[in-house]
Amino acid sequence: MSEAEKPLAIRAADAPARQKPSNYPEPFASRMAGRHKHPLGDLFGLTNFGVNLTRLEPGAETALLHRHSRQDEFVYVLEGAPTLVTDTGEIDLQPGMCSGFKAGGLAHHIVNRSDRPAVILEIGDRRPGDSGEYPKDDLVAALGSDGAWIFTRKDGTPY
Amino acid sequence: MSEAEKPLAIRAADAPARQKPSNYPEPFASRMAGRHKHPLGDLFGLTNFGVNLTRLEPGAETALLHRHSRQDEFVYVLEGAPTLVTDTGEIDLQPGMCSGFKAGGLAHHIVNRSDRPAVILEIGDRRPGDSGEYPKDDLVAALGSDGAWIFTRKDGTPY
Repeated sequence: MSEAEKPLAIRAADAPARQKPSNYPEPFASRMAGRHKHPLGDLFGLTNFGVNLTRLEPGAETALLHRHSRQDEFVYVLEGAPTLVTDTGEIDLQPGMCSGFKAGGLAHHIVNRSDRPAVILEIGDRRPGDSGEYPKDDLVAALGSDGAWIFTRKDGTPY
Repeated sequence: MSEAEKPLAIRAADAPARQKPSNYPEPFASRMAGRHKHPLGDLFGLTNFGVNLTRLEPGAETALLHRHSRQDEFVYVLEGAPTLVTDTGEIDLQPGMCSGFKAGGLAHHIVNRSDRPAVILEIGDRRPGDSGEYPKDDLVAALGSDGAWIFTRKDGTPY
């Protein structure tokens, strides 16, 4: 992307939604209905980390409960009242609250149990060699050398 | 930092301000008066990238006009009406607007020319071997192997 093609700045709410709703295989992809990711960093040509504006309809979640092996994550709540769920506890979030997830730390996801949409900024770096662990689901993710995720069952068989 | 020491989530506005107001040598450090950086990612043990809640009093700026050689940056405006200034143009920002700065791209900084505070989320990765270029100031920054910035004049002499 040339500098001339990039906007100087945008309203985040105007960023187009990601066309592929989920990278997960079924039956997990369908569980991501109601989650709308709007990539922001990509619009400015960023490659070292990704930033999404993620909208969660009531009942939606940011991801399956998961942890990364090498990539750190950070979230900042802009709207709504979603709940951060980890493998050791949970906490109700409000606009202005934030959390971070060190690679190899707590498994986590954010679930919208409220009756109104929630909007979250999500940041994650793109360190190569990452993998995703899903404590509650029969799923393992490995980041391929092309940057695409490869999902298998925990016994290594493909979906 | 052990998992037990980390909060699950915090109100970003409650994060303590960074104790050292600026890493720049004088006379540049004094120009950062009115800029208050509240590290957020560090509170959760993140190391791959940094996240700051940065408050700009009227007249303050996020940094000198600069570009990084290897690290990407992203900003999201939470409050106020600051101005993004680059070496090719400028744009007035409002809450909900964002911008990103690819390493090696436009030189940039955000200046608060308004009469009320501005609050911004700033994200930058921590790729080693980075350097900082300052088109309008006699300053060069090199990231040391210990992660600390080394500032010199453009002719290489120290401050």
